Amino acid sequence: MDKRGEIRIISVPLSGEVRPGDSLSAELLAAMREINLQLENGDILVIKHKVVSKSEGAIALLDDIQPSAAATNWAREHGLDARVSELAMRESKRIVRQERGVLITETRHGFVCANSGVDVSNVDGGAHAVLLPTDPDRSADRLRREIREQTAIDVAVIVSDSFGRPWREGLTETAIGVAGMQPLVDYRGQKDRHGYSLHATVDAVADELACAAGLACGKLENIPACIIRGYQYRRGEGSAREMIRPAENDLFR
Amino acid sequence: MDKRGEIRIISVPLSGEVRPGDSLSAELLAAMREINLQLENGDILVIKHKVVSKSEGAIALLDDIQPSAAATNWAREHGLDARVSELAMRESKRIVRQERGVLITETRHGFVCANSGVDVSNVDGGAHAVLLPTDPDRSADRLRREIREQTAIDVAVIVSDSFGRPWREGLTETAIGVAGMQPLVDYRGQKDRHGYSLHATVDAVADELACAAGLACGKLENIPACIIRGYQYRRGEGSAREMIRPAENDLFR
Repeated sequence: MDKRGEIRIISVPLSGEVRPGDSLSAELLAAMREINLQLENGDILVIKHKVVSKSEGAIALLDDIQPSAAATNWAREHGLDARVSELAMRESKRIVRQERGVLITETRHGFVCANSGVDVSNVDGGAHAVLLPTDPDRSADRLRREIREQTAIDVAVIVSDSFGRPWREGLTETAIGVAGMQPLVDYRGQKDRHGYSLHATVDAVADELACAAGLACGKLENIPACIIRGYQYRRGEGSAREMIRPAENDLFR
Repeated sequence: MDKRGEIRIISVPLSGEVRPGDSLSAELLAAMREINLQLENGDILVIKHKVVSKSEGAIALLDDIQPSAAATNWAREHGLDARVSELAMRESKRIVRQERGVLITETRHGFVCANSGVDVSNVDGGAHAVLLPTDPDRSADRLRREIREQTAIDVAVIVSDSFGRPWREGLTETAIGVAGMQPLVDYRGQKDRHGYSLHATVDAVADELACAAGLACGKLENIPACIIRGYQYRRGEGSAREMIRPAENDLFR
C-alpha cells in the first residue's frame, strides 16, 4: 500500500476486437495512452484470459469440431452444444464431475473449473470458442517483458479467469497466469502485534488481485484489463502453477 | 465504476484495541476523521470479522474451556491447543474433514472453513480466542444503520474472514456478512456485445470486494477495515447467506 494507504484499480478499455497475431502489449499501451494512464514501476496489470487467448490464437472454429460420441450424448441429454462439450473434454486431463449438465474438469494446466475454461461468450456471437491460453504463466511473462521493452517500466502481470468454487454461489476471478510477483504471501512464523505467531497463514494475493480487478473489468463492456496501483507486492519470478494445491495436500478433495 | 473508470480501496487503520461493548461504528468514524476520509453515499465498508466479534463479545477466555475427550485426543495427536479444538468443534454443525491436524467444519452459519473460523492470532497474545460473529449479516446491518444514523450516509457493509478453499493454495477473503447490497450479480439472460447470451454467469461480487479489501487490510498491522469507492453495486437488502450454495446444487462436493 502506498503512503496514503490507498490502492487504485484503474480500468483499461480496449476499443477494438483482439485477433490472433495482434500484439496485445501494443494494444494495451495504446489503450492506456488513450486514457492518459502512465504506467509506473510496481503497477500490476491484470488481464482477462480471453483477450490473451484470442491474441495467441487459442480459439477454435466450432464448425471444425467433430464431437465424440461421449460429447454428443452428454450435450444431447442436457441441451448443450456438443462441439463445446467436445472441446471441454479435449482440454481436460481429468473429469472431476459430470452431472446435471455441469462438466467440471481438471485442465491440462491443473486448474479445476467448469468446461475446462472453454467459453463462447464475448467472442463473435458463437461461431468460435475461446480456450485457456496454452501456458498462461508464459503469456503473463511475455506481456511483462514486452511492456518493459516498450516502456522501461517494471510491472507484474496476472492473467485471470472466472471460476466457480465449492460451497459458495457465484464465480470469482482466479489468477491462472502470473509473472513478476510472488502469488502467495507466507506469514507463517511471523508474529502479530501481540507477539502471537501466525499459523497456517498463507495469503493467495494473486487471486485477491484478480478479484479486485474483476470489479473493474466489465462482463458486458469491453474492459478486459486494469492496472492496480499502490499494492506492495513481493517481487520475484512467481507463477500461477504454485497456486495449484497438490492433490495429496488437499483435504478439501 | 465511477466516470474516471477507477475504484479506490482506502485503508482505515484503528489505533486502539477493540473491546467487548465498544461501539465499532463510532470507532470507525473516528478513525476516518483521523485520516480526513469523508464517507460518500455508495461507499462500501469492508471490515474483518475479528474486530466485529471482539466488539460483540464473541470471544472466549481459553482457560475457561474444558476440552472434550475428542478435542483432547485430536489436539494431543497433532500438537494443537485442545481448548481451541474444542471451541472449533462446538462452533460447528458438521465436521467436513478431520485429518493430518486440519479440522474443516461447516459452521453454525453454514460456512465451510478451517476450525469453524476460531482464531487466536491478533487477540492478546493467545489468552482469548475469537469466534465468528453469531450472525454476521446482522452485524453488517447494524454497522450500516449506525453509520447512517451518525452521518446520514448510505454505505453497504461487508464483514469478511480469510478462508481456505479446495484445489488452490492460500487463503482469500470471503464475505461472511453483507448489508445494503446484492452480493451476487446475475448476468444470465443478458447478452454480451456480440449478442451472445451469457450462460451460467453469476458473479460473487461480495467475495471479490472482500478480496479487494484484503489487499488493503494488513495481517500484521492494525488495519481491520477499508472503504471501497467507485464500485457501482446493486443496492438491496442482500445477505451473505445467499452466497452459501445449497448442498443439493453443489456438484463440487
